Amino acid sequence: MGSLDMKHLESTSLMMNNPLDPEEFRRQGYMVIDFLAEYYKSIEKYPVRSQVEAGYLRKKLPVSALYHPVSMETILKDIQTDIVPGLTHWQIPNYIAYFPSSGSTAGLLGETLAAGFNVVGFNWISSPASMELESIVMDWLADMLSLPKSFTFSGGGGGVMMGTTCEAILTTITAARDALLDQIGRENINKLVVYGSDQTHCSFFKSAKIAGISPNNFRTIKTTKTHAFSLRGDSLRSTIEADVNAGLIPLFLVATVGTTSTAAVDEVGPLCDVAKEYNMWVHVDAAYAGNDCICPELGHMIDGVEKADSFSFNAHKWFLTTLDCCCRFVKDPNALVRCLSINPEYLKNKATDTNQVVDYKDWQLTLSSRFRSLKMWMVIRSYGVDYLRNFLRSHVDMAIYFENMVTKDKRFEIVVPRSFALVYFRLSASAVIQHSGQKFLEQETLNEINTKLLESINSAGKIYMTQSLVDATFMIRFAVGATLSEIHHVTYVWKVVQEHATAVLARRSISC
Amino acid sequence: MGSLDMKHLESTSLMMNNPLDPEEFRRQGYMVIDFLAEYYKSIEKYPVRSQVEAGYLRKKLPVSALYHPVSMETILKDIQTDIVPGLTHWQIPNYIAYFPSSGSTAGLLGETLAAGFNVVGFNWISSPASMELESIVMDWLADMLSLPKSFTFSGGGGGVMMGTTCEAILTTITAARDALLDQIGRENINKLVVYGSDQTHCSFFKSAKIAGISPNNFRTIKTTKTHAFSLRGDSLRSTIEADVNAGLIPLFLVATVGTTSTAAVDEVGPLCDVAKEYNMWVHVDAAYAGNDCICPELGHMIDGVEKADSFSFNAHKWFLTTLDCCCRFVKDPNALVRCLSINPEYLKNKATDTNQVVDYKDWQLTLSSRFRSLKMWMVIRSYGVDYLRNFLRSHVDMAIYFENMVTKDKRFEIVVPRSFALVYFRLSASAVIQHSGQKFLEQETLNEINTKLLESINSAGKIYMTQSLVDATFMIRFAVGATLSEIHHVTYVWKVVQEHATAVLARRSISC
Repeated sequence: MGSLDMKHLESTSLMMNNPLDPEEFRRQGYMVIDFLAEYYKSIEKYPVRSQVEAGYLRKKLPVSALYHPVSMETILKDIQTDIVPGLTHWQIPNYIAYFPSSGSTAGLLGETLAAGFNVVGFNWISSPASMELESIVMDWLADMLSLPKSFTFSGGGGGVMMGTTCEAILTTITAARDALLDQIGRENINKLVVYGSDQTHCSFFKSAKIAGISPNNFRTIKTTKTHAFSLRGDSLRSTIEADVNAGLIPLFLVATVGTTSTAAVDEVGPLCDVAKEYNMWVHVDAAYAGNDCICPELGHMIDGVEKADSFSFNAHKWFLTTLDCCCRFVKDPNALVRCLSINPEYLKNKATDTNQVVDYKDWQLTLSSRFRSLKMWMVIRSYGVDYLRNFLRSHVDMAIYFENMVTKDKRFEIVVPRSFALVYFRLSASAVIQHSGQKFLEQETLNEINTKLLESINSAGKIYMTQSLVDATFMIRFAVGATLSEIHHVTYVWKVVQEHATAVLARRSISC
Repeated sequence: MGSLDMKHLESTSLMMNNPLDPEEFRRQGYMVIDFLAEYYKSIEKYPVRSQVEAGYLRKKLPVSALYHPVSMETILKDIQTDIVPGLTHWQIPNYIAYFPSSGSTAGLLGETLAAGFNVVGFNWISSPASMELESIVMDWLADMLSLPKSFTFSGGGGGVMMGTTCEAILTTITAARDALLDQIGRENINKLVVYGSDQTHCSFFKSAKIAGISPNNFRTIKTTKTHAFSLRGDSLRSTIEADVNAGLIPLFLVATVGTTSTAAVDEVGPLCDVAKEYNMWVHVDAAYAGNDCICPELGHMIDGVEKADSFSFNAHKWFLTTLDCCCRFVKDPNALVRCLSINPEYLKNKATDTNQVVDYKDWQLTLSSRFRSLKMWMVIRSYGVDYLRNFLRSHVDMAIYFENMVTKDKRFEIVVPRSFALVYFRLSASAVIQHSGQKFLEQETLNEINTKLLESINSAGKIYMTQSLVDATFMIRFAVGATLSEIHHVTYVWKVVQEHATAVLARRSISC
């Protein structure tokens, strides 16, 4: 092509408006906003857990992409027909499975604005506002959580927003690993040991695996019901001592505040005391419960965090920010920067050279990141700290209300004590024995009955709950936190549980 | 709290509407859409590169979060006043720095809908539609790119959408590493070697570092201008042979199609042939240029990819999907799943147990991921394959047009040949000599003059370009690809470059 061939320039402009044409954007934007407003308005008509069969969508869509465009009207119609039935509706008030995925008008419109500006944040000059707002908002959050000054920028530490806890833990393990290997030599990498409890989230060990820690050196320290499944300093110490005696080298501990399966809260302070004796990095993972700790009456749940090296929580779980937004604080950002920094010529710029700015690319895994702080800032401003606290408390109140109802029905038992907005319960052995007329009931049989109960509840589609299995005990897990949940939904959930329990017990009674 | 204390339930409902109240969402949603429509309409009035000073925002915002809420009207006013001045405007048509960040109505509204549904995709049951749509759309993309069948689900492979190339490469290195260490023993981890060229993106070595590969074993193989900075099979072979002779073990190669600093295209086929002899994993990183390869006339740029193990490109760079959207294809998903799978009780479900579904949590780093396929599907449907191809071609045409203008001005030279929509140019030594009256010019001095020229252009705020430094040669880098860019913007860019060049040469003339 010697001289300019304008044919593609012409053909693109002839074919349609520019994809960012303001008026067409406005027209389609209103349509999408209306679509979502109607979705929220009628959300309770959908089954919570999707009822589609595996492979349903491939049967509906063409095998290849189409060459010609279709209108946004058609696309939205297709979303209603083909996509919505395949959604498990995390925003339905009767969604009480896994953890919540906390949506809000401010969070979702913050994501929209971020996608609209579509800036790529890697260093300060690539987007000063996104870099600076992130630092400021992370300091606000540290203040709301009463984290020690050492986790804030003014105290020499600081925070960053990432996608998920996996990224938060992976990069802190990497920083801790390289700081230690720099001292003792890389040949010792296979001696490094990481510690959590048998309740620690599986993503910790996945992260450790990715970081090249030998899976032989993953310690899942046993916890007990007696201590509410909390990891304790003495158990950590004895595990570490055995490793050290075997010639291994302790590297990293995850202490969890609010585990997935039992809502357990590890003894952060005593654990840090032990870990410090062995020069280990301690990360406090409060992915779910950390949100709640902005309420002063719950702040004590993270007591001891002042002794830890890093702390993270997932704002997308319970802080109205929409997926994804993991907030991680560290005391020593240089440990991250030394390990994760990249400075090729094509990213060089004067602002970075002055060392007066934060280049978040060196604090995290990814080079580029979205303008996540915008939605967080909009959530905090749009609702205010008072409301956010009461929003979180309202879910805790709903869990207490649910727990009270469970306790009053003698067929059920609370398996581990409620914490935060999590209730773990099951049909009790005595209830099943009474209904079946048996004298004795194996734990396994009781688990099967409760598994049936949960599957029966979920299949009906009205509510959605998930399970835990701890110490061979199957529990049904009530995790309230959807933005639209109100007290009458909790009443309804309990009514559904009771009805299905009656049916399951009746079937049991007939079959025996 | 023995009996139910409803005070927080009451106080949240008294304070304000629910944060997902449909009508309030609609009202605020329209406001945000209008805000963005106005932003696009008047975008050219802003300086491209932000003109704020480091620390500007902390001076404007309160030190702590406010306790009371403010209206969306106030928030949008504050965004206009405080945030917009701190943005480097990646969507401005005169933005030609780094790589493009490709926005569109369909992409941004897809992100909005995904945030609105706010489903958390980790396994099939958590959101069947997001899991299935992702598989289908990745197969569509494979087809558009003419990737071999082995990279598609029907061919036993498949694709996944992640945030960035860092995540794509990190997880493939990890899969390759563990597959190899399972054979040869973990004690050999420090013998593993990873290979790229001196043009390979820095995030590859960052990923390798995170995966625990010893930095002593990162090979950045020298490329030359003679071969257009392409990594060649013979250079790879000699480097590998030296390592093998030294007792090291080759693990992983990144072959790049379209490097950042020189737009180089590595010899994918011959490199794979060499790598296969040593049982290495080859990943083809086409982060930028991969987008362009949906145009049949450019498909040959990834010739040889059929011999590679994995391939990725960043749709957020040049495919109208907005940040973030990295698409990665693999031939052997089991290599990933074996290494990255986590299956705790709390995620167990019938669909997973049947092995008939894709649980993307086991294909990537993060457990949870956003419904990214929705925006990609909306982009493909909204614009169609024909338009997408012409959209990409129009930028290539603009780069050819720019290159032609550079060539005609004898003061300038093209430093490396244009590829895709990337032009690398500089003021030539002869032009500077002519203007300064000097007889000889050090390369370093020429670099300084071009650095000054670029800084002069960028400081004026009308356009924004970045640089490369290769073989001690500083180049100004023209990377056109903003959605709103049209041919007259390119003409304008060139006019600005010429004006600043005249001024810089004039100052040079005076100072000599």
